[in-house]
Amino acid sequence: LPRKLDRVPAIGWVGGPDGHAAVLDQTLLPGKVKVLRVTGHEAMRDAIRRLAVRGAPAIGIAAAYGVVLAARRTRARSAARFRSAMARAIARLESARPTAVNLSWALRRMERKLEDLFPGARELEAGREDAALREVAAGLLAEARAIHAEDEALCEAIGRHGAALLRSGWNVLTHCNAGALATGGSGTALAVVYSAAADGKDIKVFADETRPLLQGARLTSWELRRGGIDVTLICDGAAASVIASGKVQCVVVGADRIARNGDTANKIGTYGLAVLAREHGVPFYVAAPGTTFDLGIGSGSEIPIEERPADEVARSFGKRTAPEGVAVYNPAFDVTPARYITGIITERGVIRPPYTKNIARAFRPGVRGRSPPRRT
Amino acid sequence: LPRKLDRVPAIGWVGGPDGHAAVLDQTLLPGKVKVLRVTGHEAMRDAIRRLAVRGAPAIGIAAAYGVVLAARRTRARSAARFRSAMARAIARLESARPTAVNLSWALRRMERKLEDLFPGARELEAGREDAALREVAAGLLAEARAIHAEDEALCEAIGRHGAALLRSGWNVLTHCNAGALATGGSGTALAVVYSAAADGKDIKVFADETRPLLQGARLTSWELRRGGIDVTLICDGAAASVIASGKVQCVVVGADRIARNGDTANKIGTYGLAVLAREHGVPFYVAAPGTTFDLGIGSGSEIPIEERPADEVARSFGKRTAPEGVAVYNPAFDVTPARYITGIITERGVIRPPYTKNIARAFRPGVRGRSPPRRT
Repeated sequence: LPRKLDRVPAIGWVGGPDGHAAVLDQTLLPGKVKVLRVTGHEAMRDAIRRLAVRGAPAIGIAAAYGVVLAARRTRARSAARFRSAMARAIARLESARPTAVNLSWALRRMERKLEDLFPGARELEAGREDAALREVAAGLLAEARAIHAEDEALCEAIGRHGAALLRSGWNVLTHCNAGALATGGSGTALAVVYSAAADGKDIKVFADETRPLLQGARLTSWELRRGGIDVTLICDGAAASVIASGKVQCVVVGADRIARNGDTANKIGTYGLAVLAREHGVPFYVAAPGTTFDLGIGSGSEIPIEERPADEVARSFGKRTAPEGVAVYNPAFDVTPARYITGIITERGVIRPPYTKNIARAFRPGVRGRSPPRRT
Repeated sequence: LPRKLDRVPAIGWVGGPDGHAAVLDQTLLPGKVKVLRVTGHEAMRDAIRRLAVRGAPAIGIAAAYGVVLAARRTRARSAARFRSAMARAIARLESARPTAVNLSWALRRMERKLEDLFPGARELEAGREDAALREVAAGLLAEARAIHAEDEALCEAIGRHGAALLRSGWNVLTHCNAGALATGGSGTALAVVYSAAADGKDIKVFADETRPLLQGARLTSWELRRGGIDVTLICDGAAASVIASGKVQCVVVGADRIARNGDTANKIGTYGLAVLAREHGVPFYVAAPGTTFDLGIGSGSEIPIEERPADEVARSFGKRTAPEGVAVYNPAFDVTPARYITGIITERGVIRPPYTKNIARAFRPGVRGRSPPRRT
């Protein structure tokens, strides 16, 4: 990371198993830096739903910490009740948002850990229920912390592999926020920029403001400036002329879910950038960890696309900006077909077409580390 | 126009030569319908600059009324002073905004009228200076009213020619506002929709909100609802997936300046739509009157593109939405190369490629009415 990077973590855990999650409330940025003390899984679900914490890797971590909170806060004192309380909490966390696969990936991993710590046949010993459940929570916390620490390492590796693609003097266009604020580390798309800058390359960024919630304006430009990176903010509609005029040499975006064939769901507006990049011969890269791949689905058409409330568009920034009662269509994501993607920058290197073959090869189970999730 | 259309004129003139211009303050829509009483050319210039009145045809009309105001309010009582006051006023009005050619077209026409009314050699007769200047102002007002009335007729004709392109059941995507609020009549792109609806066709509209100033959210959705047209508002970034998913059968936009070869400047974001439309085999139409053509320039690269203040992007809706001091690039327009345009809907019919030949043929001077402007 650049020396100047002054990072405010998107999420963290304070204390031991009886502690709490600390969530940076990103809805208040850039005006206010406020860290929420999150003490229960419902509060964590709410933080995810209302985008206090957002970004595919970060919401995976948030959900994992949510499982720890559920384990510690439950009043169940029988094994059966504890198991059903945990199943309910996990289902609640999983329903917070549908598109990013990291959420269900992290929850599946926490479920497996729970099963290790508290196998199906086990009962709670009378008189020491609390101590036993505290041990389970401690084990779950260790797993959530591991997910968090691994994500930080994934960001580092993505940054390293991606930085090799950028030449000094290049301007990079990005969309939404795929930075430190979206992950447990330095980001995905922005890790590439940070890492290239740390290598001494002169890299400037054009950031799409990213309507409706302005993650580019509020988050990306904020964290890049803190990281000492030169950033210019543009409206989403200006990206086409910025690309056409030769102002950018490369587009790098994050991802919320990548299918087995490379089709990629990411923030609404990404697909349009991909088409424009190809039209102008500008390379278009997706940066994402293995945890964002969903090898259980064959193509982007199977990715569920979240639709968000009309008021995100019609009532912007606390003010009504469209007539009362106007119909709004507000999908939060779109799918970029793999054929528009120059390469997918992962912790295992840059995956190039043909994607079905090369994604399968990169994430062959057990060969070079943990494999990405398969939906059950 | 549909029976239900309840139109609030973008601009009008109240009274005789001593009257004033009435400008709907579009910056306050949709929250507030306020009509400004504009009594001088500087106030008109300000109304144009701050987009109280906007849209290429409407600012042409506004500038013409501005010339009347200048003639009537000047304190000059010698022919030489009157002429230089008028030249200064026209220059001020012309510098209000650079991209839409209708502004300079209307001013050139008012200059010619002024020369007719008050030829170069003429002096003011001592003792009846005021009466003479009032007569000049009356003549200028008649010309401005003619420009306004002609624009209304151009809108009607554009609507009629464009409506023939739309089939019942189609959804039309549009960008920014090219409606009644942008013209002296029923609009350009939206006239096509109104006219098709008046023919009994079932037409629905997807309206891009059009950042930064949200003309789609604030103006297009407002006037379409008043006109009884079904409209769905989307973020600019969502247009790509709306087009990709087959939700729209046609794109129709307005224009601010069209070069001799058909290259078209229009609101920032238009070019991206054109590329996406072609990628998905969706026809992409530009609707504009002859007054929007600039036959004095060979291609879009010669069109001056206005850059607007950073705060339109960084401080949205009265609230700071990006970090203090962030660099912003805020071009108000982009240029769509002619090769992406399926047809240009004008008052003389739909012009198809090859544009250089067919534009020249459609607007051959004197053949079928007034020819479009040539820059001097």
